[in-house]
Amino acid sequence: MAQGASPAAPSPRLFHARRSRSFRALWMLEELAVPYQIDYLDLGKGEQKAPGFLAINPSGKVPTLLDGDVVISESGAICAYLADRYPAARLAPHLDSPARGAYLKWLFYAAGCMEPALTDHALKRATPPAQSAWGEYDAMVVIVAGAVGRDRYLLGDWFTAADVMVGSIVRFGLAMKLLPPRDEFAGYVERLAQRPAFQQALASDMASRTAQ
Amino acid sequence: MAQGASPAAPSPRLFHARRSRSFRALWMLEELAVPYQIDYLDLGKGEQKAPGFLAINPSGKVPTLLDGDVVISESGAICAYLADRYPAARLAPHLDSPARGAYLKWLFYAAGCMEPALTDHALKRATPPAQSAWGEYDAMVVIVAGAVGRDRYLLGDWFTAADVMVGSIVRFGLAMKLLPPRDEFAGYVERLAQRPAFQQALASDMASRTAQ
Repeated sequence: MAQGASPAAPSPRLFHARRSRSFRALWMLEELAVPYQIDYLDLGKGEQKAPGFLAINPSGKVPTLLDGDVVISESGAICAYLADRYPAARLAPHLDSPARGAYLKWLFYAAGCMEPALTDHALKRATPPAQSAWGEYDAMVVIVAGAVGRDRYLLGDWFTAADVMVGSIVRFGLAMKLLPPRDEFAGYVERLAQRPAFQQALASDMASRTAQ
Repeated sequence: MAQGASPAAPSPRLFHARRSRSFRALWMLEELAVPYQIDYLDLGKGEQKAPGFLAINPSGKVPTLLDGDVVISESGAICAYLADRYPAARLAPHLDSPARGAYLKWLFYAAGCMEPALTDHALKRATPPAQSAWGEYDAMVVIVAGAVGRDRYLLGDWFTAADVMVGSIVRFGLAMKLLPPRDEFAGYVERLAQRPAFQQALASDMASRTAQ
């Protein structure tokens, strides 16, 4: 539901780089089904270091989300923020829901354990579990396969922002052969890919700059 | 404000390992100023793999928090959960506060960027920025020093759960000489150490098993 820029619009605005971790934020916005704007940044041209963008986010990181007065980066933080801020989409258990614990656990596990474990694996290096917060790659694979193979989504039938994070990493891991081709992973990614919001996000991610 | 176990008590219960990342959860509970229980687990004796604990958290990770029906692990998730669930302590900006973005950004940056960058540094290895979500160690140092050296806390005068996460990592990094001894870091840790809740958490962390 991306729309053209309008100075008066209070809708969320995503600074996005194609085929990057920024896809998570794009998918999340599509799941919310609220109007939003996309600014495409070309990382190859260093557009994330351009003065205009640095004035918005001095760290020059994408994705960056603007929502009214809120400026936010880190894809996990963007997903957590949007899910709570736009509750109509029911992408997060409420603060007093018993499911809130598992929901937050998966958001942080994705950022703090899955990402570094996959990076270790990609770079063919072992991290001593005693020194890392994320443990070993093999243990991560078993934990995630168990969690995504049990039900439709991480919280059973309930799709949440945690699936956006974990699902995006599993999808990337499979595509890059950084995760083993286990049925649990393939089935989960297939279920996620059936979601209209995912498909729309993918289309926006692929869209040419001029066609936005 | 730790108290003895009581079957009827609905207060949060922390499964804690001394001198570990679990300290963050302990500190957080002290900041909330609500009654809670601590179960000390001795990782050296493998108590995190004992059947009784695995029945509560099959992943065998500490810290693990029980709060009513909620079971939650990952220190960032525990801090985020508690701050929202016990709003009287004002440890998190409300969902519609403009400060919510920076708050969540720092929680996820701590788990997803600071931790892996410090681990890279500890293991004397470089991670290509293009492959990691966290970038380079040197950039992380500059970003965090700028953020903690500007004001009293990350959100100005307002102490939040983000300071528990970032502050714990900065404190650990300084102590282990994994961060340079910059004034910004030392001053921040000094301000945090003046908080009564921090001091009480430290006392509980050091307490002997029998003296709990």
